[in-house]
Amino acid sequence: MSILESGFTAEDFETRTARMQKVMQEKKLDAVFLTTEANVRYFTGFYTQFWESPTRPWFLVIPLTGKPVAVIPGIGESGMRSTWLDHVLTWSSPNPEDDGISLVAGVVNSLPTRFGRIGATLGQESYLRMPTADYLKLASLVDGKEFVDIAYEMHHLRAIKSPAEIAKIKRACEIAGHGFDMLPTHAKIGQTEQEICRQMRINMLNHGAEFVKYLISGSGPDGYDSIIMGPTPRRIEEGDVLIIDVGAVHDGYFSDFDRNFAFGHCSDETQRAYDCVYEATEAGLKVARPGATTTDIYNAMWSVMEEGGALGSGVGRLGHGLGSQLTEWPSNTATDNTTLEAGMVITLEPGMVYAPGKEMVHEENIVITEDGPELLSPRAAEHMVIIK
Amino acid sequence: MSILESGFTAEDFETRTARMQKVMQEKKLDAVFLTTEANVRYFTGFYTQFWESPTRPWFLVIPLTGKPVAVIPGIGESGMRSTWLDHVLTWSSPNPEDDGISLVAGVVNSLPTRFGRIGATLGQESYLRMPTADYLKLASLVDGKEFVDIAYEMHHLRAIKSPAEIAKIKRACEIAGHGFDMLPTHAKIGQTEQEICRQMRINMLNHGAEFVKYLISGSGPDGYDSIIMGPTPRRIEEGDVLIIDVGAVHDGYFSDFDRNFAFGHCSDETQRAYDCVYEATEAGLKVARPGATTTDIYNAMWSVMEEGGALGSGVGRLGHGLGSQLTEWPSNTATDNTTLEAGMVITLEPGMVYAPGKEMVHEENIVITEDGPELLSPRAAEHMVIIK
Repeated sequence: MSILESGFTAEDFETRTARMQKVMQEKKLDAVFLTTEANVRYFTGFYTQFWESPTRPWFLVIPLTGKPVAVIPGIGESGMRSTWLDHVLTWSSPNPEDDGISLVAGVVNSLPTRFGRIGATLGQESYLRMPTADYLKLASLVDGKEFVDIAYEMHHLRAIKSPAEIAKIKRACEIAGHGFDMLPTHAKIGQTEQEICRQMRINMLNHGAEFVKYLISGSGPDGYDSIIMGPTPRRIEEGDVLIIDVGAVHDGYFSDFDRNFAFGHCSDETQRAYDCVYEATEAGLKVARPGATTTDIYNAMWSVMEEGGALGSGVGRLGHGLGSQLTEWPSNTATDNTTLEAGMVITLEPGMVYAPGKEMVHEENIVITEDGPELLSPRAAEHMVIIK
Repeated sequence: MSILESGFTAEDFETRTARMQKVMQEKKLDAVFLTTEANVRYFTGFYTQFWESPTRPWFLVIPLTGKPVAVIPGIGESGMRSTWLDHVLTWSSPNPEDDGISLVAGVVNSLPTRFGRIGATLGQESYLRMPTADYLKLASLVDGKEFVDIAYEMHHLRAIKSPAEIAKIKRACEIAGHGFDMLPTHAKIGQTEQEICRQMRINMLNHGAEFVKYLISGSGPDGYDSIIMGPTPRRIEEGDVLIIDVGAVHDGYFSDFDRNFAFGHCSDETQRAYDCVYEATEAGLKVARPGATTTDIYNAMWSVMEEGGALGSGVGRLGHGLGSQLTEWPSNTATDNTTLEAGMVITLEPGMVYAPGKEMVHEENIVITEDGPELLSPRAAEHMVIIK
């Protein structure tokens, strides 16, 4: 049987490749060179957890016409051969003397030189998943061609999701939503963050999650001051606020949203902060449609929080793209100005510091449609959920 | 409370930093520049799942004397401030104009120039988790200093584990062992690989796993041909062989070993292959001690498999380092020749193609002690386990 990524057909990968080849014509590129899980998977359907092993580099070369060519360690050969590709070149890796570099240089050099340029993801929100020394060696081996940055073009291609991709993200959101729905039935004062999060993880797996790649928590008396650490062994006490943020994965696609819970009781100040950030999301939903920008979303949400007494925001943005990675381009910031298009899946993530050492962060996942935003995550409760 | 990585004290990070600073003297380095989760964590104890988000770069600079300096996105400030570091510089990220580059260049430029060299992990089994364009810009901004590769030195430092690290890996191995022990009680002919692996994942979480970051499977009639894909929706049939390979995580440290199961019955040829690979591990255990090399292990294991009729091996090596990553340096290959030292944790992973389209792979996790190898994984069954 094929181990092509489920839910997609060879035509999907053909379409994606054709879209990239159109960009290559515009940007005058003879080839595109890719190295990361998300980018290699996007054009091949090659889906494996083996990227968790950082030892071996993997390469994909997209020519100006025809199918992509995979240049990969032998351990991946049978998997890659089950994709839609025709050309799979392998070497025995790890090989410190030459870990695929002369092989991939040969592939690039065998392509016609029309423009003398090779696209690679060298810029913002990108990295090359290969030794930097090997990249510099490769750059010296490709005759008469120079590497140029296509980080933006790659981000933009992937940002417009197909209906099959959107369906996967929606299912991941349903799974995370189930985990949050169950939480008040098992989370109790006296439990640790780790105990609560472990039960939530198991509930999501039982509900069909493929994995839960991101599950953090923060808690403290009447508020929390971090949204990226934990879960810690800290025990929940009467009067605590707990935030949990979840990246559940279904068929290779992520959810990314959080929920807040108070235990026993909650101060008026914190309840007001919750309501304010809820309203900020409502304001974001009103502007999130094709033609508006990520900065319009930022401004709409931030002005609600500023009026609500925000002292600042430590997150650096109010939401971002979402898909086969937990966070993707673009970002909702004061200067990002990316124009929204139908098919983009993004998060609305208003967050503010409302008192010293206390943050309030909400998050929802939406898809931009011609008719406006559609929620993929079940909407958060209108007021703080208090677990008695 | 501190969210320092559990099980370690500030002294542990001080010792690690001192070991690196000794290497820096020998290698004539004014500073070391680090960007990845495993390396930043190693010197700081900063432990978070947030690395799952690829958007923002994180930097750590180790000077020739004194504590490391963190240069990180503001979203991580409260977390990093709870570590043993004194200097935590932040900027509001993402910022496409300057994502921390001028800030980190300023830190490096403020250090005394004694040697004019900065170490970075540019070589084998390494990458820079930052945009390559930003790295090249940084290299142009550091006055009178050049970047040089310290991939080997970083690998070697991390390869020698402390007793606390070894205890964590051992616990991860116990958890994975529990998952494998339970498997014959729930896995049945007619179930899919995905169903079997989901139950195993839940069993390991219930047994205390922090996460299960790697859980793959391969199956087929009397054998499998890949050990890095799946789990797939393929249904197990009478006469199938199933391999599952597991990276369970406890407190940030991995197990990495696999087990094989036959369903209903198993051919003599496949049982012989199992026994042969079991014997290869025994041969590896006999030579794995301080002073021997990874190549001695390779030769000992490969000669058993060659005598046993091996047609080849698609994996590229017969085991590797293990720790805060699923796979670490070094590799057991015919040419690696790394000398084993007490404290190294490695896998013995003999694998062979024994018939067209059929592989047999075993794996155990061991720590090298002065007295020889100590098994961290519960030893595999001596003969193929057949689930009736």
